[in-house]
Amino acid sequence: MTESLSPERMAAWRAYIETSQRLFTQLEDDLRAASELSFADYHVLVLLSEAPGQRLRMGELASRLVFSPSRLTYQISTMQRRGLVARESCPGDRRGSEAVLTATGLLALREAAPHHLASVRHHLMDDLDDAEVACLTRVFTRLGTRLRAARDASTTSRQE
Amino acid sequence: MTESLSPERMAAWRAYIETSQRLFTQLEDDLRAASELSFADYHVLVLLSEAPGQRLRMGELASRLVFSPSRLTYQISTMQRRGLVARESCPGDRRGSEAVLTATGLLALREAAPHHLASVRHHLMDDLDDAEVACLTRVFTRLGTRLRAARDASTTSRQE
Repeated sequence: MTESLSPERMAAWRAYIETSQRLFTQLEDDLRAASELSFADYHVLVLLSEAPGQRLRMGELASRLVFSPSRLTYQISTMQRRGLVARESCPGDRRGSEAVLTATGLLALREAAPHHLASVRHHLMDDLDDAEVACLTRVFTRLGTRLRAARDASTTSRQE
Repeated sequence: MTESLSPERMAAWRAYIETSQRLFTQLEDDLRAASELSFADYHVLVLLSEAPGQRLRMGELASRLVFSPSRLTYQISTMQRRGLVARESCPGDRRGSEAVLTATGLLALREAAPHHLASVRHHLMDDLDDAEVACLTRVFTRLGTRLRAARDASTTSRQE
């Protein structure tokens, strides 16, 4: 069975993957030029700032970031050393632990956000018309839901 | 000046960035399960297999992959140790060097490709209708051209 893609779909895939990698590199370069944060640091700060109590269990954070446990431990340790996050035991569950946003972390996010969003606008969003914006939202929201469900199922059943 | 995004555009950006990172992690997990290759290895093999004489100058390869010179040197060294690529001096330019696809590299690519493309179909492409495929091609081809031009200009003029 050949699992090839039609020429139209192969062209879409190549354009999407190559441009996305180029875009993420550009956004990360811009972010590092304007702040002390990597893309992963920024993403962690955003997720914690939006969470109730500005804290998330490590397992939940790993799942949201699609990081392995060891990669997340490393990521959070480097952020902890810079004072951007703290790590605390979960109330009522001494085995679990949570990452908690610090004031330093919140200030770093607030300082970096305008630069980062300007870069997102400049390199991506200002180039799109409303129909294209709607198409991206529709495609990637649907796909994200499906990928999360598949991953949760495979983690639970270990069938994959 | 606030460089914020409209709620519609912020929703599109978040769906795109979060789902893309999730998708790339899933595709890399699938690739590693079916082969000895990382996503970066695979991408290098594809670019070399498509180049005239199955070889590319290191600078050109770095630019196509959007890798820094040091990251590319590391990437190519690890592939060289596994026999997937060779490194040779450029004919007529002793200072330059090229990465060259080996037979082992080509066989590894041919063996991995059907699994990788099946995974791209399963996780992304089979979920899209033709209008969505056309939208992705249009948006990411246009954006890729713009990002390459901006990067080339900034590398040349060093104004960024």
